[in-house]
Amino acid sequence: MSVTTAAPIQALEGQLSPGALVTDLDVVDSYAFDKALFCSAGQAMGLVRARTVDDVVAVMRFATEHHIPVVTQGARTGLSGAANAIDGSLLLNVTTMNEIVEVDEVNRTCRVQPGVINQDLKTALADHGLSYPPDPGSVAISTIGGNVATNAGGMCCVKYGVTKDYVRAMTVVLADGTVTKLGRATAKGVAGLDLAALLVGSEGTLGTIVEVTLALKPALPPPITAVGIFPDTESAGRTVTEYMSSGAAPSLLELMDGPTVGMVNAYGHFGLPDDLGALLLVQSNAQGAGAMDELETFRRIAESHGGTEVFVSDDPADSEMLVAARRAVAPAMEKYADERGGGELVDDVCVPRSALGEFFEKLADIDARFDVEVATAGHAGDGNMHPSVVFDAGDEDQARQAQEAFAAIIQLGLDLGGTITGEHGVGFLKREWLGHELDAGAALMHQRIKEALDPLGILNPGKMLG
Amino acid sequence: MSVTTAAPIQALEGQLSPGALVTDLDVVDSYAFDKALFCSAGQAMGLVRARTVDDVVAVMRFATEHHIPVVTQGARTGLSGAANAIDGSLLLNVTTMNEIVEVDEVNRTCRVQPGVINQDLKTALADHGLSYPPDPGSVAISTIGGNVATNAGGMCCVKYGVTKDYVRAMTVVLADGTVTKLGRATAKGVAGLDLAALLVGSEGTLGTIVEVTLALKPALPPPITAVGIFPDTESAGRTVTEYMSSGAAPSLLELMDGPTVGMVNAYGHFGLPDDLGALLLVQSNAQGAGAMDELETFRRIAESHGGTEVFVSDDPADSEMLVAARRAVAPAMEKYADERGGGELVDDVCVPRSALGEFFEKLADIDARFDVEVATAGHAGDGNMHPSVVFDAGDEDQARQAQEAFAAIIQLGLDLGGTITGEHGVGFLKREWLGHELDAGAALMHQRIKEALDPLGILNPGKMLG
Repeated sequence: MSVTTAAPIQALEGQLSPGALVTDLDVVDSYAFDKALFCSAGQAMGLVRARTVDDVVAVMRFATEHHIPVVTQGARTGLSGAANAIDGSLLLNVTTMNEIVEVDEVNRTCRVQPGVINQDLKTALADHGLSYPPDPGSVAISTIGGNVATNAGGMCCVKYGVTKDYVRAMTVVLADGTVTKLGRATAKGVAGLDLAALLVGSEGTLGTIVEVTLALKPALPPPITAVGIFPDTESAGRTVTEYMSSGAAPSLLELMDGPTVGMVNAYGHFGLPDDLGALLLVQSNAQGAGAMDELETFRRIAESHGGTEVFVSDDPADSEMLVAARRAVAPAMEKYADERGGGELVDDVCVPRSALGEFFEKLADIDARFDVEVATAGHAGDGNMHPSVVFDAGDEDQARQAQEAFAAIIQLGLDLGGTITGEHGVGFLKREWLGHELDAGAALMHQRIKEALDPLGILNPGKMLG
Repeated sequence: MSVTTAAPIQALEGQLSPGALVTDLDVVDSYAFDKALFCSAGQAMGLVRARTVDDVVAVMRFATEHHIPVVTQGARTGLSGAANAIDGSLLLNVTTMNEIVEVDEVNRTCRVQPGVINQDLKTALADHGLSYPPDPGSVAISTIGGNVATNAGGMCCVKYGVTKDYVRAMTVVLADGTVTKLGRATAKGVAGLDLAALLVGSEGTLGTIVEVTLALKPALPPPITAVGIFPDTESAGRTVTEYMSSGAAPSLLELMDGPTVGMVNAYGHFGLPDDLGALLLVQSNAQGAGAMDELETFRRIAESHGGTEVFVSDDPADSEMLVAARRAVAPAMEKYADERGGGELVDDVCVPRSALGEFFEKLADIDARFDVEVATAGHAGDGNMHPSVVFDAGDEDQARQAQEAFAAIIQLGLDLGGTITGEHGVGFLKREWLGHELDAGAALMHQRIKEALDPLGILNPGKMLG
């Protein structure tokens, strides 16, 4: 791919909505990073804040003509550097395309522009008695377009699945500016290849999503909540393994280890018990007596694995406080790391649920082997764990050890039959790792599909596919 | 694509399991068709009954070397001609690769070879307290490999989704014989493009599936059943529209129109009421009192739309009999058609649920316009209808009118925002129609991906992608 940094970018201005093109590098550079830590970014030549599909089309035609790399961005809340700037690129930010085009109560679908914030959609849907379950940690700040481009997950997934399970159709602008509609609005459909599914999670490497049709659920019933206290993460992990194989269908099943709970308690007043090895947060929104039955099953299994206490509450205020505590993990950890030199690497492995006990045993070995702190939270019910490596970024030796610990955790995930990323994506952060997960045939398929749909290699080059 | 009909096919024999290669054209020709009616087939040069992945690899290497088209087949129960022979092709039948490799109770997954019969898997899983919901009409005779290659649906879909919702990973043999693993066994994962989803429903045009890892559910709770009687299909359709938008989550919601019920009653003793415009069959397996609540909601909505009677039963024997009656539609219709000249074209449009009333109004117009009989059954809760055009195949004028009526029904589906195929696939039958559904961009994406993954065009050429 040739990069023409001297492309006459001003010529693009007349083809865009007024004010959409930004070439002031101070502003451009303020859009250079997403929320991935320790990911580098290049020098973009400009920023387009697209307001219309026509803006996106104009950018892609221009980029094709001049062989300019394009990095499509939502709210830049990603954790893998997928939205980071590339040298000589145009940043194509679609956050201002943020209209909820239609809510169809009868078919239980909605059509939204890519810049709609996930929580704003949830709020709007509540007025219709509908819900869109996917709830990544960034739910309050991330966009539906970004959620689709990364196949975002969250805490609901254990019962309600991930973003891809809700995408029916989408409108996409291809590398050459062609606008196409993929998928369909109907509940079923098998006409042709499932190209909408191919675009979900493609991290801006195959096209720019400019509209999405999502399937919705009726408003979810309110849950009741249990908290289980464990002497160590292994016993919590084994509890999750057995509980999930019991036929239980919790609507949430999250884990926080002792260090994480300590950070959350230091960050805010969430009333979490202290001095524990691990905590499991479980919710059920099963109908009628089913919810309490599911939590009683949890209690029985937790106690059989050494759980010391299980509290159950059907007070919605308790539930909200506990979920808020879980949501506070990211900022609490960031604050904790900031106070210790600012180093934090958030991992995102996902292992088979049967492997959770072994995962925690070996994670403890990694923690012991390196001179860093490892604190773990995650979506235990899905086997999707986020161990964070906290270190002093100013200490060269610690920084090196942190990288090694981070790598060891990814390798551990692979060794246990898992994946390098459960929900954060590959992006820039794990592009070298993708080749460890894919076999040669799958890697070649990726390369060939990329070449077929982006022959000039202008769509987010160097991300995901290396 | 060049077809070398004179390829030295005997040379393949030594590379295959003993007896796998069949060149006796009487036997080969007995594998030339699937269950699509009025679809042509070409003259295959040979048949391979693959027993191992190595057999499949040998076939694909040989086919690549000699540029021979390969038609992968399961049990040939498909309804679109996707498995029909092509001139000069090798038929690659994988039904003898029928081992259930592993049932993992803890992770609630299984690994199966492609030739496992859907019902055999269901039966085996019941011993583990697990279920695999997808239940196409062919459940008793079709294979999991074929189900995945066509993204099969069925009666469960209204609550439990389609085949693609259960596919976690697969092993695929690519056009050149490369064996690759796509997807992953974990509950979540976003490492790279979702190539497993791309292969689901690809109808043998991108690769041959030789193993599948499926997500499973706990054994489904037994349902209770309601039957609603309507004076016409429109009122039944409008009942479905409103019922499905009420937040109800029936585990089954099927429609049979009057002519269909008549055919079923003539076929066997299922005790269905006679002399009606349409019948809706509804089941709920919601927990506790939820099931009866859902059926009472159905009764209320049905009556508000002119439904004349609603029977509710919690007797499992009644439920089984009624579902058996619905399953009898296909053979009953076939018998009926046989007695009238043997012409039957089964359609498979899927429309938004909001459009069901209008669909039936306009379907009646089509029925009136042509000198054929139209009888309709289908998965009403998903908007997926199977109008069948019955005609005298020996009467040239009727045959022509039948084709026109069939086309008019597909066009009606498209006009109402639907799809040309909800679950049967494109195959040979609807390959000309695919271009009516896809826009130019999506059509080009199909073509480029096909060329990228099958550069010689040897994988089921002429099917789906035309």
